[in-house]
Amino acid sequence: MDSDIDDLKTLFTAKPRPTSWAERRARMDEICAIDPPPADIVFTPFAIGGIPAEWSLAPERDAARVLLYFHGGGYCAGSIGSHRAMVGGVGKLAGIRTLAIDYRLAPEHPYPAALEDALAAWRFLGEQGYTPQSIAIGGDSAGGNLTLALLLRLQALGEPLPAAAWLVSPWLDLQMTGATLDSKADIDPLISRDYLTGLATAFLAGHDPADPAVSPLYADFTGLPPVLIQVGSSETLLDDAVRVAGALGAAEVHATLEIWPRMIHAWMLWSGRLADGQAASARAGEWLCRALRPKLSQQERDG
Amino acid sequence: MDSDIDDLKTLFTAKPRPTSWAERRARMDEICAIDPPPADIVFTPFAIGGIPAEWSLAPERDAARVLLYFHGGGYCAGSIGSHRAMVGGVGKLAGIRTLAIDYRLAPEHPYPAALEDALAAWRFLGEQGYTPQSIAIGGDSAGGNLTLALLLRLQALGEPLPAAAWLVSPWLDLQMTGATLDSKADIDPLISRDYLTGLATAFLAGHDPADPAVSPLYADFTGLPPVLIQVGSSETLLDDAVRVAGALGAAEVHATLEIWPRMIHAWMLWSGRLADGQAASARAGEWLCRALRPKLSQQERDG
Repeated sequence: MDSDIDDLKTLFTAKPRPTSWAERRARMDEICAIDPPPADIVFTPFAIGGIPAEWSLAPERDAARVLLYFHGGGYCAGSIGSHRAMVGGVGKLAGIRTLAIDYRLAPEHPYPAALEDALAAWRFLGEQGYTPQSIAIGGDSAGGNLTLALLLRLQALGEPLPAAAWLVSPWLDLQMTGATLDSKADIDPLISRDYLTGLATAFLAGHDPADPAVSPLYADFTGLPPVLIQVGSSETLLDDAVRVAGALGAAEVHATLEIWPRMIHAWMLWSGRLADGQAASARAGEWLCRALRPKLSQQERDG
Repeated sequence: MDSDIDDLKTLFTAKPRPTSWAERRARMDEICAIDPPPADIVFTPFAIGGIPAEWSLAPERDAARVLLYFHGGGYCAGSIGSHRAMVGGVGKLAGIRTLAIDYRLAPEHPYPAALEDALAAWRFLGEQGYTPQSIAIGGDSAGGNLTLALLLRLQALGEPLPAAAWLVSPWLDLQMTGATLDSKADIDPLISRDYLTGLATAFLAGHDPADPAVSPLYADFTGLPPVLIQVGSSETLLDDAVRVAGALGAAEVHATLEIWPRMIHAWMLWSGRLADGQAASARAGEWLCRALRPKLSQQERDG
């Protein structure tokens, strides 16, 4: 807890972004994982079909409830490793297990490869005996996009939905029409319109960016479970978060939006050194714990 | 807890709104106070200068922290009595005292009479020894408008601000440009564009509705303390809540927006019979308790 958000902003602004996908991925793993996860969490790598996956569980937590998590990285970078501390940390705070996956990345694997892998991970949890009501799904940035895309796909298939969804700094509009893409450009050290445009081009590979399957902001959210959205106020993607809260509300979905002052894209990645990363993780943990709590019957509630 | 929101919707839709101000005020007191407050809360009426006021305090709560509350009613109706159960109930859940006032109402007392009374109540708390950091302010509907208007006035005067602000179903745009004023018109049993137009005319008495002092949505919120906004998804005023969250975030303010499915305008008034009124009140109580908690120093936090 000895670092301030301004130190991180300076650190990230000082380093120019590399150009090759391999270098970008290496850099993302490096800058996202500068602090280790809490020492008492047990991480267990395995595979779901060909998809690399990893459980996390801290001592005395409830292995019967789980957060299925999709890392960010613009659908082109990021990994289980880059997000290990954040995902494991929030799972510990929520008192539950987590499952992270290395879904396939663009440009080698454009849409819908990631969604297929996300669906496979969801099905795997069902095979392990998890009921939909014992599962929350979530993700940051492109992982927030994938979270909503999976919910919409499950709904289209007529399948039961998980109990809740958690979105951190979600990237939900691949047409990039949010006003904060410009108004916050000077203070966001990580995410620019140009950067997102390159990622979208690689991920879409010609697919229509207005399709709600890739830009969930344009979907009809009627019938979705409760959604928690957390975003920093220093983000170019702030408007994606605010707009999706409005769209969820318009569709009568239980939506909670938290805007954290001065925080940057997916700032909970740096909770090891950032008090407001730890505080936001704690809030997410509480919310997930509550959302996955066994529902009381009317009788139990009155009694 | 034996009533559903649909029962309330039916009840309110069935009763035509009276036309005289006296009848409207009587009806609002009647429909808002259909259930008594929790029996263990002590309410103490008094006056601040000529302004009727009322303390509430439940047993074993902290009288050194306080919520200053402004009732709703379009600046033309509502009272300490209409909102007693809601305000006292949330104060009890937050573990603090509350202070409610009967600020002057339009059309007899248009803008800025209510703001002057709100400022007088704020000053009174200071005279009683409350520091700004031990005070939260809040209100529903027009009371949410008055809450932000008071914050902006204090800021313009260069005075310290309270620790937090709580807005329930706030009415923040007297130009009425929110899209949900039309898109939710069919399902909102309480608040229509016509109704709001009449209230705005009475309150403004010729004042410009674009002035941020009466339409705080258009204010610069830089420097405000954390704000919790709670709104129902069946409200014509949903967009005022979503838009103010975005505007607060754009100004780097800590904003939390909760959208509650199927809930109607200021539904926490009916917490005595509505499980989601009680649940939303509990969330507000938690949030206020946390916002008013003594701040730890960096050393205490690390230690």
